[in-house]
Amino acid sequence: MANITKKVSWSSRGDEPAPAGEGTPLLNGAGGAARSYSRQFSGSGIFQIGRLSTVDLEEDPAPEEASYEIIPFILSPCVQESAISRPKEIPHNEKLLSLKYESLDYDNSENQLFLEEERRMSYMGFRCLEISRWVVCALIGILTGLIACFIDIVVENLAGLKYKVIKENIEKFTEAGGLSISLILWAFLNSVIVMMGAIIVAFFEPIAAGSGIPQIKCYLNGVKIPRVVRLKTLVVKVCGVICSVAGGLAVGKEGPMIHSGAVVAAGVSQGRSTSLKKDFKIFEYFRRDTEKRDFVSAGAAAGVSAAFGAPVGGVLFSLEEGASFWNQMLTWRIFFASMISTFTLNFFLSIYHNKTGELSNPGLINFGRFDSDSVEYNLYEIPLFICMGALGGLLGALFNVLNYWLTIFRIRYIHRPCLQVMEAMLVAAVTATVSFAMIYFSDDCQPLGEDQAENYPLQLFCADGEYNSMATAFFNTPERSVRSLFHNPPGSYNPPTLGVFTLTYFFLACWTYGLTVSAGVFIPSLLIGAAWGRLFGIMLAHITPYGSIWADPGKYALIGAAAQLGGIVRMTLSLTVILVEATGNVTYGFPIMLVLMTAKIVGDYFVEGLYDIHIKLQSVPFLHWEAPATSHALTAREVMSSPVTCFNRVEKVGTIVDVLSNTSTNHNGFPVVTRVMDDDEPGKICGLILRSQLIVLLKHKVFVERTRSRLNQRKLQLKDFRDAYPRFPPIQSIHVSQDERECMMDLTEFMNPTPYTVTQETSLPRVFKLFRALGLRHLVVVDSENRVVGLVTRKDLARYHLGKHGLEELQLAQT
Amino acid sequence: MANITKKVSWSSRGDEPAPAGEGTPLLNGAGGAARSYSRQFSGSGIFQIGRLSTVDLEEDPAPEEASYEIIPFILSPCVQESAISRPKEIPHNEKLLSLKYESLDYDNSENQLFLEEERRMSYMGFRCLEISRWVVCALIGILTGLIACFIDIVVENLAGLKYKVIKENIEKFTEAGGLSISLILWAFLNSVIVMMGAIIVAFFEPIAAGSGIPQIKCYLNGVKIPRVVRLKTLVVKVCGVICSVAGGLAVGKEGPMIHSGAVVAAGVSQGRSTSLKKDFKIFEYFRRDTEKRDFVSAGAAAGVSAAFGAPVGGVLFSLEEGASFWNQMLTWRIFFASMISTFTLNFFLSIYHNKTGELSNPGLINFGRFDSDSVEYNLYEIPLFICMGALGGLLGALFNVLNYWLTIFRIRYIHRPCLQVMEAMLVAAVTATVSFAMIYFSDDCQPLGEDQAENYPLQLFCADGEYNSMATAFFNTPERSVRSLFHNPPGSYNPPTLGVFTLTYFFLACWTYGLTVSAGVFIPSLLIGAAWGRLFGIMLAHITPYGSIWADPGKYALIGAAAQLGGIVRMTLSLTVILVEATGNVTYGFPIMLVLMTAKIVGDYFVEGLYDIHIKLQSVPFLHWEAPATSHALTAREVMSSPVTCFNRVEKVGTIVDVLSNTSTNHNGFPVVTRVMDDDEPGKICGLILRSQLIVLLKHKVFVERTRSRLNQRKLQLKDFRDAYPRFPPIQSIHVSQDERECMMDLTEFMNPTPYTVTQETSLPRVFKLFRALGLRHLVVVDSENRVVGLVTRKDLARYHLGKHGLEELQLAQT
Repeated sequence: MANITKKVSWSSRGDEPAPAGEGTPLLNGAGGAARSYSRQFSGSGIFQIGRLSTVDLEEDPAPEEASYEIIPFILSPCVQESAISRPKEIPHNEKLLSLKYESLDYDNSENQLFLEEERRMSYMGFRCLEISRWVVCALIGILTGLIACFIDIVVENLAGLKYKVIKENIEKFTEAGGLSISLILWAFLNSVIVMMGAIIVAFFEPIAAGSGIPQIKCYLNGVKIPRVVRLKTLVVKVCGVICSVAGGLAVGKEGPMIHSGAVVAAGVSQGRSTSLKKDFKIFEYFRRDTEKRDFVSAGAAAGVSAAFGAPVGGVLFSLEEGASFWNQMLTWRIFFASMISTFTLNFFLSIYHNKTGELSNPGLINFGRFDSDSVEYNLYEIPLFICMGALGGLLGALFNVLNYWLTIFRIRYIHRPCLQVMEAMLVAAVTATVSFAMIYFSDDCQPLGEDQAENYPLQLFCADGEYNSMATAFFNTPERSVRSLFHNPPGSYNPPTLGVFTLTYFFLACWTYGLTVSAGVFIPSLLIGAAWGRLFGIMLAHITPYGSIWADPGKYALIGAAAQLGGIVRMTLSLTVILVEATGNVTYGFPIMLVLMTAKIVGDYFVEGLYDIHIKLQSVPFLHWEAPATSHALTAREVMSSPVTCFNRVEKVGTIVDVLSNTSTNHNGFPVVTRVMDDDEPGKICGLILRSQLIVLLKHKVFVERTRSRLNQRKLQLKDFRDAYPRFPPIQSIHVSQDERECMMDLTEFMNPTPYTVTQETSLPRVFKLFRALGLRHLVVVDSENRVVGLVTRKDLARYHLGKHGLEELQLAQT
Repeated sequence: MANITKKVSWSSRGDEPAPAGEGTPLLNGAGGAARSYSRQFSGSGIFQIGRLSTVDLEEDPAPEEASYEIIPFILSPCVQESAISRPKEIPHNEKLLSLKYESLDYDNSENQLFLEEERRMSYMGFRCLEISRWVVCALIGILTGLIACFIDIVVENLAGLKYKVIKENIEKFTEAGGLSISLILWAFLNSVIVMMGAIIVAFFEPIAAGSGIPQIKCYLNGVKIPRVVRLKTLVVKVCGVICSVAGGLAVGKEGPMIHSGAVVAAGVSQGRSTSLKKDFKIFEYFRRDTEKRDFVSAGAAAGVSAAFGAPVGGVLFSLEEGASFWNQMLTWRIFFASMISTFTLNFFLSIYHNKTGELSNPGLINFGRFDSDSVEYNLYEIPLFICMGALGGLLGALFNVLNYWLTIFRIRYIHRPCLQVMEAMLVAAVTATVSFAMIYFSDDCQPLGEDQAENYPLQLFCADGEYNSMATAFFNTPERSVRSLFHNPPGSYNPPTLGVFTLTYFFLACWTYGLTVSAGVFIPSLLIGAAWGRLFGIMLAHITPYGSIWADPGKYALIGAAAQLGGIVRMTLSLTVILVEATGNVTYGFPIMLVLMTAKIVGDYFVEGLYDIHIKLQSVPFLHWEAPATSHALTAREVMSSPVTCFNRVEKVGTIVDVLSNTSTNHNGFPVVTRVMDDDEPGKICGLILRSQLIVLLKHKVFVERTRSRLNQRKLQLKDFRDAYPRFPPIQSIHVSQDERECMMDLTEFMNPTPYTVTQETSLPRVFKLFRALGLRHLVVVDSENRVVGLVTRKDLARYHLGKHGLEELQLAQT
């Protein structure tokens, strides 16, 4: 029942250890009796309270065996899979909510151990902690900047080498004839480079695919995406993005930087690497979800900052995606990390470019310097900007719909690594072919200026001293193409060139996003938008009598780029600031904001943003900022999950092991109640204990001997919990003997004695607000007597959403 | 006991109606029996639970009469006050926490009326609400921009006129001799203009004094400062700031813009003006604290945006000061208001300057355009920047300490309006005299360039074709002086000129801040910093061999300005962004951040920021972002106020009137409990009702007849509560007859049935987090049986703070 695996997902891997207590066979305890479990133990200390309100696959009467499928695609990835396992059991999986994702706990478990530690700590201790937080942020910034620097330099050299080879080849064959050989060379080079990138992603770390922004959004939202912040992911991501950009795909290297920053943060802040089995014994205080999430937001901000040279934009990105609770010091630290990251990147790039110490360069993508004269705009241009925003919203919605269908197709039919690699290679070859054809059939020749910014001007069939202008757009890394569109003087491009380029690049980019390669969608979006924006500007200049004065095509290219990007990703405040910082000039703030807002309003009318679509397709229980507007009619009573498995303050070890081993109830938090005599009556709440804490307790065998003559419970420290964080062993790995099962465990010291509670009558928006504002993982619902009647978790809140026909409820599934 | 009035405070006015239920004599009910009240009624439905834990002036055994003092300073303001009322009873009032400030309630009271309304409302209804929120934000932006425009134009013309008159006078007397007449003219003009500004502030609206930023900080923090967002305050503020800037004081017009924006927002969002007795019957839904506070943060942001041309900085300012709970849509709306505000200002200024439609101008203060070449910086300059930051922190701390002593002096001795006006006039005259002396004794002549930016170049004793460079700094509005220091070419100023200017302006600005005039401290701080920063740059250029290449004095002036401002106000992220946006160039982001951070660290070592000092001197219960680090040892049991006055679900009208009229317990929230038989036992909580709600209920006589034969309780609607918001009448204005006193009132429908609760064992940081994250006003503390044992309010949390010797507790006082 627990193993209806969806075959293609951010984390689907055959060799993946399932999360603790979920989808794993029972190794000890009352093995095999999972289904009838709750009834069996209802008389021995586990209270099953209330009624079942969640739509759960448990009600599915299908036999368990049929839905099990473990495909050995690691060993023989291309084996034809049997018809029965064709993954059509989830036809519309965006209507489902997956139960496989765990939540992060932003609320500290303030148990006795924690409080003792805090009370022991002096004022100086807190100061030291604060200082180490700053040190960690500085490290995050430095490392993120270095990674950005590394990616930039490697991509530049690899791509330079590739274009040089092809250029020489083309030049050789232009006169001799036989340019098809050049085409084949180009397609071959692209495919090989992309293949390498696709192979490492598909076979070693599928989570590293894509831009990583949806995953980081989820993480900051409070969902633990498996393996998303591991070192291995980082390595694959970095290598993958180098390959895909150098391989000439219609992708950018900016999105992956955000993911990289987040991984760096998660690693550095923990002071150890679980993958490398290396513990530096530092920053041990930070080994819990609360602190780690704070650092990850700093890392994501540092990534944005390095990618776009936009420290403030980075901070706002993190806040927009992650912060439900705004904390001034945290924000300031995030800003510090962002600044350090840009600084590091600039410093090392300045060394690389032999201008050591000149720190005024922006980030990875550089929109170039907009001159103060050309950036001015007039009142009568504002309606034009709004039109462009609407167009961007329309095109963005089209992009997203096409990509949505494509993703559905991919989930259904292209979910095996070898197929994925082949698709990536195909896209790379097609990209090269289309580019070549465009350049070949283009007759747009431009004179080769002296201060020409082109790195690889292709003469092709143009006269001497001229170059092919289509090649500027296609025969170049996307970053350079964007800059050319922004800054090349008026007249550098013919309108037909731009039109054809927009069209082809639009479909190429749409096909490319979602491939099993590490790649971002920012740059392709900007490029598409810049192209049609420039076209728009040129046309304006044609139809207005004195157009050339104000209709600077570079300005319209910028506005178009903003519109297209806004139409696709639908970020708002942070994107405005990122774009303003990337242009290096605040004058454009107002038009960019207008354009982004229009694009968002128009786009939202049709379809969600690209990242949200991909998050939904993964059935992630993503919490929005507020409860749906019309949800006041719902109360905690309807929303909560029940019955809830509760423990007594002093509980039998056997009971605990059985509950934890039970696969049908993969709870992660258990209310602790005071024992009441009548077992049918629910107990009064006195605390909350987490699965992870119980696992550590069991592992260390913190038992009270049953004889009660001597209370020899082993003294456990917070350190023991921190050492186990975050990869707590599954319950199956802990052996508990039959004798030990009879022992008792005193949970008083370890449980959180003051969990937040709400009453059953509390309305959904109120529950939502509490849950979201405090970043909770479990919220206990009690009756007027403080007796536990239910538990609200993320999935209970996330399943309500506002559809076209009012409030809708998503189904929950173990996929 | 309740009337130990502190004589000089933000809101001290003789004719001020005291907040409901506080410091007012009993007019009905069990009048006079205030002291023994709680015991008297303990048997008739009011439960007094727990023990008294707050340090309260009620424990003060002094007789009540001695501490009463109502000074009729409005009618005869200059009457010598008697020795007994000399205000020395509060020698260190920053160690006190005033009880007179009420809190804003950011948590909606989700009573039945509210829920019914929400459930009745369709999806389209919510959409319309959302749209009207955007409309309100647009209006806020437009009006704030217009106000900024008005202030700018009037100040420019007034100051221009003044300087023109004086310049002509000086030129006349330079050759003829008798410059002392010019001095007298200058001093006289200044004094008269400033006098007008001081009179309206001191006599009509004292709350309009100062920059208004501390007050807005408090408002956004959740403290209701009386009269701070009224129309009258706005009018006085605008006129006051025009007078003080035109009067030549060392002040800026930027701080007051933030206050003005907040007032505009509070007015527009309510769709009516209580002062003008005009109700437009729109935006009625927004008539509650939650919505109003959201709009006020938008208004403050719009103010910052208009003042500095910094929309993003404005958003960050609002968030930094106000947002505990980050809401994406709200942030986006705030940004919209900010953008509209800058846009409106630019648009109308462009019309005024006959460049209609050129929208690329920044806000009120304009740092001018930093050329891309001069803004570049090198690695080896970073240590210099850090040194400047430290110096800024030191000077800022000195400024703050001096101003603190001055403020203490003012609170003690200069608290009558006529004295305040005289002090302001004195400062104006001294400013003119000092400026004149500086210019007179300066021998720093500079050649008058062709493209000279000076508006009023004074030749004085310089040769023909030259002008006095000291006059550039003194004989000018501060905004222009700042710009000159940033942009005048190297060599425009002699080092001695700058040194003397820094010194004098430092003390002048310090003396000026805190006068009873509307004026900001931003511009004077920037000016001081720019002066010593430029001096620093010039000295660097002298001592380094190839200094002139990189040591651009304008650049160092900017860094110095940032350091000085950061050292005084200690804002962090928002200030960085504001300064970056004001320079219009993102390149300086990193050095400005470094400098501000250093200044903050160094300054915080000595003394708090200027705004925080003034907030503390007013004993405002200001909540910081987090509970003090070492407060884990405290629990809700120690923190909460008890006993708590509770009501029954169905309560006797007489009891309610008596409780509300009781001056000794000026509670604003009352837990509603289920009646228990044994009166000694505390009741189980079933809701929370506010004083304001009870007042409305009493006013509308929503009583159940005692006979119980027919339940003729009048049906009340949310509209009735909204109409009364925010100035609920005092209980004394409501007449309740003796018959009516015997009636019963059913609170079920009106109370909030699901107030947030915590248990007694909850640690202070946990209580604090809940309170802060949700913006609560009352948090009920219950025992394990859900019985009310205490109530946590803002003052209970605000009184713990981290002093030099660990955790300190402030005293509570009714001042």
